[in-house]
Amino acid sequence: MSDAILLAHGSGGRLSHELVKAKLLPFLANPMLNRLDDSAIFEANGRLSFTTDSYVVNPIFFPGGDIGKLAVCGTVNDLSMSGSKPAYLSLSLIIEEGFSLGELDLILQSVKASAEEAEVVIITGDTKVVNRGQADKLFINTSGIGIIPDGVDISGANARAGDKVILSGTVGDHGIAVMSQREGLKFSVPVESDCAPLNKLVAQMLEASTKIHSLRDPTRGGLATTLNEFAQQSNVGIIVEEDRIPIAEGVRAACELLGFDPIYVANEGKLVAIVEPDDADRILATMKENPYGRNAAIIGRITNDYAGKLIMKTKLGSSRIVDMLTGELLPRIC
Amino acid sequence: MSDAILLAHGSGGRLSHELVKAKLLPFLANPMLNRLDDSAIFEANGRLSFTTDSYVVNPIFFPGGDIGKLAVCGTVNDLSMSGSKPAYLSLSLIIEEGFSLGELDLILQSVKASAEEAEVVIITGDTKVVNRGQADKLFINTSGIGIIPDGVDISGANARAGDKVILSGTVGDHGIAVMSQREGLKFSVPVESDCAPLNKLVAQMLEASTKIHSLRDPTRGGLATTLNEFAQQSNVGIIVEEDRIPIAEGVRAACELLGFDPIYVANEGKLVAIVEPDDADRILATMKENPYGRNAAIIGRITNDYAGKLIMKTKLGSSRIVDMLTGELLPRIC
Repeated sequence: MSDAILLAHGSGGRLSHELVKAKLLPFLANPMLNRLDDSAIFEANGRLSFTTDSYVVNPIFFPGGDIGKLAVCGTVNDLSMSGSKPAYLSLSLIIEEGFSLGELDLILQSVKASAEEAEVVIITGDTKVVNRGQADKLFINTSGIGIIPDGVDISGANARAGDKVILSGTVGDHGIAVMSQREGLKFSVPVESDCAPLNKLVAQMLEASTKIHSLRDPTRGGLATTLNEFAQQSNVGIIVEEDRIPIAEGVRAACELLGFDPIYVANEGKLVAIVEPDDADRILATMKENPYGRNAAIIGRITNDYAGKLIMKTKLGSSRIVDMLTGELLPRIC
Repeated sequence: MSDAILLAHGSGGRLSHELVKAKLLPFLANPMLNRLDDSAIFEANGRLSFTTDSYVVNPIFFPGGDIGKLAVCGTVNDLSMSGSKPAYLSLSLIIEEGFSLGELDLILQSVKASAEEAEVVIITGDTKVVNRGQADKLFINTSGIGIIPDGVDISGANARAGDKVILSGTVGDHGIAVMSQREGLKFSVPVESDCAPLNKLVAQMLEASTKIHSLRDPTRGGLATTLNEFAQQSNVGIIVEEDRIPIAEGVRAACELLGFDPIYVANEGKLVAIVEPDDADRILATMKENPYGRNAAIIGRITNDYAGKLIMKTKLGSSRIVDMLTGELLPRIC
């Protein structure tokens, strides 16, 4: 086999079959995928969640992860944000002609490791190859199916006045890590992407309390955009104490240098939860026991005032309306 | 709103929301999608099918269809080939900066029309924008979920000696239509893509008989590759009478001119069925009543000889082993 992707690897013919058998199945094999029919078959009873995301991150390798880890974790997290237990994933590759088979191996290793950590199974897939210059190296789509436990009803539209806002950890790590790799920047305190599967954290939170009303992972557009979405979907106001938002030292320094506001920078291993006030401390304590929630904090509350708006309060008592991201901070961040 | 896609349309922030609300929801709105949470929720009980495909066809508009119609029909067909009733689709767009919003409208109109014809609902989606030159106009991923009726067990591994091979119509139409558009070729008999949703044809076939063992739509790699896959998955031989394969006049002429063999050229609205011999005529008669099966024909049979091989017999009595596609005939055909 050549050491680079050829157009014929996308032909659907002999080389496509060899690519699947020699390069993909060694990492991904399982009885449901191994059928190699046009679709995979699984059994289900009850409420399911379904999500899709295409990943176009540039560069495909960055501190703390790569496009393979991102593609599994991102879709696992989207499923988790409905309170569902992620179960099955699809994996669809768009590969540029000439892409290195060695790099493909590394990315599939990441896919495998992340799927194992999240305990999800990749049961169906697709591979396309486009001519050199018609795509940038590798794009990955993962779609996913999750199983929603009884009694769980989570939506961005469910936030209610009085609810507390919990953030699971520091913001901005993913965006700054990818950007620094892309631009060849070095900071005195290195920044790693927070890319991680949050499904077990969510399951533990739901064990602590089912009174979780809204959940979302603040990816593109950052924390400020996610909170604006909640405010609009639920038609409530959200008041956040700015100094309670955890920000890592390296991210803070990089943002100051570059003129970014970390509340707009992308995350890939964080979540925002809107929860009933009486259960907020219990949920927070549970989160802090999970490595992906150890820096969790209650950062704000929901109000009937300022419907549809996010209000940021500073330590000094001033407050301002914070809009969702306008313009584009960092293209191809995920 | 600008008349072209901007990087900020992929930011996750304000312009992303405007794109979804002003450009996507008018075509796609339904209660499950309108929630705009990270994942959609649906109810299911029993066996489900799950499939994914990324579409990178070039050009995105071609005689008989466009990338939007293709993305819906292709995934509907993959679901149908397990005997399932396609129910839910995801839609994920990777758009090149500068892409025309007018062309996006046309493609979304096709998505809507094809989803309506196939009676599937798009319940979740994603939009990414990459910098100019980092993708070619538009790539679309659709993933899908179908519901498998009781008593249906269809797989490429289920073909048995004695079974008949039914082809639903002419081969090569999609590949020749796309290639002629791409290369600016004009043939005296114009060729249109056969791109179509086959789920109703399959449902009618299953009403006529549940003794359908294998189903597949011969897309990339064409009829010869699909039959080779069946032969290998089921470890049987497949004998096809070459002159029984329906080929449209324009496709035959174009293939002769270009030196292509139509059995390797892609289709997007055809299926191959391997069925029990006693029910073959009944299934064939049912297929001929459906507009997408009116040229259906029994083209061959399954044998225990030549395990794993496809044998093509000519009118004159000679026979030859036909391999799956080697090399790449037409890159970016789907």
